[in-house]
Amino acid sequence: MKKSLIALAVLSAAGFAHAQSNVTIYGQMDVQIAKRTGATTSMGAGDNNKLGFKGEEDLGGGLKAIFQAEMRFDPDTGTTEAAPNRPLFQGQTRVGLKGDFGMVRVGRGLTVVQEAIGGFEPWSFVRSRAALTSYTLANYNGDPLYAGSSQNRWSNGLWYNSPNMSGFQFGGTIGTKEAQGTGTPTANPYSLSGTYSQSGISLGAGYERNAVETKFWYLGGSFMATPELKLMASYSRQDQGATKPVNPNTKGWVLGGQYAVGTGTVLLGYGQIKPDGSNANKRFSIGYEHNLSKRTYLYVDAYNEKPPVGSTVNSFDVGINHRF
Amino acid sequence: MKKSLIALAVLSAAGFAHAQSNVTIYGQMDVQIAKRTGATTSMGAGDNNKLGFKGEEDLGGGLKAIFQAEMRFDPDTGTTEAAPNRPLFQGQTRVGLKGDFGMVRVGRGLTVVQEAIGGFEPWSFVRSRAALTSYTLANYNGDPLYAGSSQNRWSNGLWYNSPNMSGFQFGGTIGTKEAQGTGTPTANPYSLSGTYSQSGISLGAGYERNAVETKFWYLGGSFMATPELKLMASYSRQDQGATKPVNPNTKGWVLGGQYAVGTGTVLLGYGQIKPDGSNANKRFSIGYEHNLSKRTYLYVDAYNEKPPVGSTVNSFDVGINHRF
Amino acid sequence: MKKSLIALAVLSAAGFAHAQSNVTIYGQMDVQIAKRTGATTSMGAGDNNKLGFKGEEDLGGGLKAIFQAEMRFDPDTGTTEAAPNRPLFQGQTRVGLKGDFGMVRVGRGLTVVQEAIGGFEPWSFVRSRAALTSYTLANYNGDPLYAGSSQNRWSNGLWYNSPNMSGFQFGGTIGTKEAQGTGTPTANPYSLSGTYSQSGISLGAGYERNAVETKFWYLGGSFMATPELKLMASYSRQDQGATKPVNPNTKGWVLGGQYAVGTGTVLLGYGQIKPDGSNANKRFSIGYEHNLSKRTYLYVDAYNEKPPVGSTVNSFDVGINHRF
Repeated sequence: MKKSLIALAVLSAAGFAHAQSNVTIYGQMDVQIAKRTGATTSMGAGDNNKLGFKGEEDLGGGLKAIFQAEMRFDPDTGTTEAAPNRPLFQGQTRVGLKGDFGMVRVGRGLTVVQEAIGGFEPWSFVRSRAALTSYTLANYNGDPLYAGSSQNRWSNGLWYNSPNMSGFQFGGTIGTKEAQGTGTPTANPYSLSGTYSQSGISLGAGYERNAVETKFWYLGGSFMATPELKLMASYSRQDQGATKPVNPNTKGWVLGGQYAVGTGTVLLGYGQIKPDGSNANKRFSIGYEHNLSKRTYLYVDAYNEKPPVGSTVNSFDVGINHRF
Repeated sequence: MKKSLIALAVLSAAGFAHAQSNVTIYGQMDVQIAKRTGATTSMGAGDNNKLGFKGEEDLGGGLKAIFQAEMRFDPDTGTTEAAPNRPLFQGQTRVGLKGDFGMVRVGRGLTVVQEAIGGFEPWSFVRSRAALTSYTLANYNGDPLYAGSSQNRWSNGLWYNSPNMSGFQFGGTIGTKEAQGTGTPTANPYSLSGTYSQSGISLGAGYERNAVETKFWYLGGSFMATPELKLMASYSRQDQGATKPVNPNTKGWVLGGQYAVGTGTVLLGYGQIKPDGSNANKRFSIGYEHNLSKRTYLYVDAYNEKPPVGSTVNSFDVGINHRF
Repeated sequence: MKKSLIALAVLSAAGFAHAQSNVTIYGQMDVQIAKRTGATTSMGAGDNNKLGFKGEEDLGGGLKAIFQAEMRFDPDTGTTEAAPNRPLFQGQTRVGLKGDFGMVRVGRGLTVVQEAIGGFEPWSFVRSRAALTSYTLANYNGDPLYAGSSQNRWSNGLWYNSPNMSGFQFGGTIGTKEAQGTGTPTANPYSLSGTYSQSGISLGAGYERNAVETKFWYLGGSFMATPELKLMASYSRQDQGATKPVNPNTKGWVLGGQYAVGTGTVLLGYGQIKPDGSNANKRFSIGYEHNLSKRTYLYVDAYNEKPPVGSTVNSFDVGINHRF
């Protein structure tokens, strides 16, 4: 006890203003240099660049108050992400309660489906690089009314996430019908997700209906084939029938893997997006992440994309990722 | 001493970068869901959502340097507050000195009158909910030249706050005549405030003249009728004669109370705003705050508003408030 | 060991969320009140107002990962600096690696030339006050394509800084040819800097070519004439021949000094800017900084400026600077 008091005295004597805070600061910086067919060499974000503030308060009886506010920015220009189109806290702004019952939050953030589906994409939905994000999503836009084309986050939402029950977890997001950005929802958007994760096997399924009543569902799975090799696959489909009477459906699928080799990881993926009445868009991606520590890695990626019309695009990038 | 060194060694060995900082991070998140007559159910800020950075440095001889920079944001959309109309640091950006003489600061912030008057409103001037803010202010707009309608803060200001002298405190704010937003001041704006607070009794009086020479004054008081019950009242008046020759005056008054019951607080208020030559706008508000801790509470509010013309508005909201 | 564990236990028991962070928060607030010939008394930033987040991670073998993201704001209005023209992180957003080889970073920041040249200006390139910044730069604009006229920072850059070799240091910055702001570069911009600093003597030389192929070079030097007196001089030249065929060159020079007196510093400087085919713009500046601590000072400045045409401008300012 006496020693503890001394330690506390040290803390306060030295003016540790932060020590009294209830806030954890975290973030990530990721810069890539990329060259794509027909474009100039450019610098940009390989993954999201974040500066976040979060905390939790113990309310007793297993109950906790939680908050999280996460800024996003473009590291090549110093602006907020995709300025001025996206909000300063593009990552999320949510506050809520957590307990034995699970977690309830209100505010803005990634829908439960969008949060889960990234786990079945080899690049884990990084912002750019060779990620097969739009293939995993069958080109689905979760928030078409938002001018900033922030496609997988909802404003004005209420979240529920269940606790982990022997590997099973489910969750839901529902949004208000408030006017926002370029229009007013025709219905309350909602998102429903279920996942199972145990013994190296992960399965996910989700259904989402956005504010203009586009419907989206997906099935995804991954498993550890060997201690070093994780294989994954997903199938998804969107139905834009509510706003697009002709050829309303688009299908997407992705096969991929992550292979641990020494202190690095090789990433591999192939995907297709096929809208009704059109040929498929196809992409083959490969990448390598070289870990300098648990928080920092260098990477290199390449992909080859064959669009339904027009010429093939080849892309190459190198970059650095640092979490703090 | 040896133990202290060990404690410090632990701090530095573990890379506690923050421990050397001079900055305290603080803030608040507050989200409500509201339903008002004639409007869709909407999510928004019940009180201000803040992310602040502040600190003080001991200069010796009782003198301290102080700074504070406070961001505001909308938690339902992740944008800066009322984007793009208000500044990122809508809360305040002020730096100055504090000592036996009181406190002198320069920058942007709430005027001394606006800072004091909120103490005589039952909801303490929270951003939304059922607060009677405009009733307490007789619809006075402190900064009509600011496009972002940030009505009670001044840019380009110099603040003086006296020390507490047996419960008495006074202060003043004066602004420059710089062009800003939509026009140029016709005079230096200034604000003068005096308050007395002792033994459960609080009294306040203030006078303010804004940049277009609208004049505002108020009288307010509160007292603890019982250990659980605080009663409060305010009367205010603005004179827009400098810009509005006909019917220049508006009067406002509010009666209210806060009643502590168990771990919660019941809030009650009634107010009127009466512009010259028009009928009064009337509102009756009731609310309840359920404290989960000293930093977190849930709330529910309702109000009934009778505007001079048009139909009655009923409003209902529920929300969560978390300070960090 | 046991004591260390206790200290850690204290840290975590008390919920010291920050203690686990890898982020250092730092910044500066500086507000001045200025009166210039022909202008109203105005409040503004004397030096840059910053809120920064930085950190470094030890990767072993002398290698470190580093990041830094630095916001800028206007303290008189609470907006981001020069809103909406400049990026939120106007100071810098850079991530990279540091080791025996020096430092490599990518992102946005001050070019190596602009970083070094400020050391030869008596006010150290503070944002406003009586600083002779444009005289030191011969009116050179490092980033003419940027709408926000952020003249000495580059987006989309790669930095190299050498280690200190017996006082010698050199560095380079190269930018991509990406379109940004108001146009597309006609060439990759680059910046080369060399400095020597030893035994009270500092020398600097640099060459920079911006994105529209304006060329800039400078020579600068300073030395401690006495333990209290530092004298400094710089000569610089820009060649706008690539975009301005007639009278493409502008020359600038500055002589100045800093004199430590008691707890304060007197600043003195005189400079000229002379474009081809025009008379010189001349300025004489004087200032005094009164240190209240290592982190806080009050200041007063005056200058007299004689433009090539039009009447003389006199300026006077007082302010406060606080670092955190």
